[in-house]
Amino acid sequence: MALTNAELKMLKSLRTGRGSAERRLFLAEGVRLLEESIRFRVRPQAVYVATNRLGERGVALAQRLKRARIEVTTVPSTQMDAVCDTEASQGILAVFNRPDTSLEQLGRTPPRTVLICDGISDPGNLGTLLRSALAFGFTLIALCGETAEAYAPKVVRSSAGAIFGLSIATVTTTQMIDWMHGHGYKLMAADQRGEPLATVAATIRRTQHLALAVGSEARGLSPEIARAAAHRIRVAHDSTVESLNAAVAGSILMKECYDLCHTKSS
Amino acid sequence: MALTNAELKMLKSLRTGRGSAERRLFLAEGVRLLEESIRFRVRPQAVYVATNRLGERGVALAQRLKRARIEVTTVPSTQMDAVCDTEASQGILAVFNRPDTSLEQLGRTPPRTVLICDGISDPGNLGTLLRSALAFGFTLIALCGETAEAYAPKVVRSSAGAIFGLSIATVTTTQMIDWMHGHGYKLMAADQRGEPLATVAATIRRTQHLALAVGSEARGLSPEIARAAAHRIRVAHDSTVESLNAAVAGSILMKECYDLCHTKSS
Repeated sequence: MALTNAELKMLKSLRTGRGSAERRLFLAEGVRLLEESIRFRVRPQAVYVATNRLGERGVALAQRLKRARIEVTTVPSTQMDAVCDTEASQGILAVFNRPDTSLEQLGRTPPRTVLICDGISDPGNLGTLLRSALAFGFTLIALCGETAEAYAPKVVRSSAGAIFGLSIATVTTTQMIDWMHGHGYKLMAADQRGEPLATVAATIRRTQHLALAVGSEARGLSPEIARAAAHRIRVAHDSTVESLNAAVAGSILMKECYDLCHTKSS
Repeated sequence: MALTNAELKMLKSLRTGRGSAERRLFLAEGVRLLEESIRFRVRPQAVYVATNRLGERGVALAQRLKRARIEVTTVPSTQMDAVCDTEASQGILAVFNRPDTSLEQLGRTPPRTVLICDGISDPGNLGTLLRSALAFGFTLIALCGETAEAYAPKVVRSSAGAIFGLSIATVTTTQMIDWMHGHGYKLMAADQRGEPLATVAATIRRTQHLALAVGSEARGLSPEIARAAAHRIRVAHDSTVESLNAAVAGSILMKECYDLCHTKSS
């Protein structure tokens, strides 16, 4: 049951951010990611397996998907390898609808904490930030500027499945700033020359709607976000190193906000 | 002034962890990394430049190195590309002696905080952990188990130069446990089923010699480290996600230890 050339071409096109954006679909590869999609109750459009590549856990997963009446197509392992982004494919791959979120939709129930990726260009960093965002309750993610494509395979993989549990909006910086303004968000922007987060702890605790922006790995914040920020905050650390990895810095700031929002004020 | 085939082969061999370990040398590519090496006063053995690739900052760097009487060899850009690990080389590359540290050397002045990488197999994660370690005062790093090679190009790059400021020892798990025991270290091991770090805050504040172990991305802690740990600690987060990225989790725990060791007890 080999795929036709047209089907193969369509699947391969989803490996690029552009192809994924144009077709409103994205790929997720491997057993763990698909197990996570089930946990988040996100239903794939189609699943492909290379039977001889499936381990025990992969076979069980394929059966579970079939029982849920999801179409599982068996393909030759050469075709699986041609589509997969990872070097050692686990023999299972799924196509999902892209659940891109619009800010209009979000206006109805604006979440307490929002993460703005203001030019995170490395897909691994973006995926890692998504994983941390879900862990620390930042359930809405806005991607602005030169940020990597949300649903590129490397982002999906680095998110370790968190991408299935988040609302992700790709927007212009101006749209995002207007939206935050309209919904009463207080914007904190990560900046290594800013004040330590601890100095604005009381403000964070009191804030009903908090947005945290993390800037580009190479260039930092965009001028628009820097200007719109109520406070520029940094992770306190030794001056021996200039800065932290962007995903680490963003994760630490989200963690500190999470702790402040979840503990009683002292 | 093209390199001979033998020289080219030698440089290429340093791109692999094994080649680097055998020759006791490592590569660092690009302007920022070499600027960092100067800041940490680490002198390269040799520097290679492809003049037509150098930007303004690269030219200034090459002149600065020459003034410091470091040999700077001009090579054709094709040879530079053949050696460089990055896709877009900045036209400058240096070879350094590997400053591998032995535990015997460290016994003389055991640092207050030590990071143990207990099977961190992804070079990007290892480099990111090194960068955070230096930022949070974990100046000694022990690499155990299946941890990636410390001086592989991707580790050096992800460390953003922090690798020049750290003592790094590649040791067996048993050697590390014996060494910690002999020097009175208290071992805390990252474990998502452990207790939140806050519950052992008082212990961390009091501890004179603290070691933090971070386990493998896929398998977690090794049985030896898990058994040797005084406490297993975790980053508190929503149960929506199973775990954080290993470099993020390790960085957050180091940050929390850093804060505890640098603030007065409440």
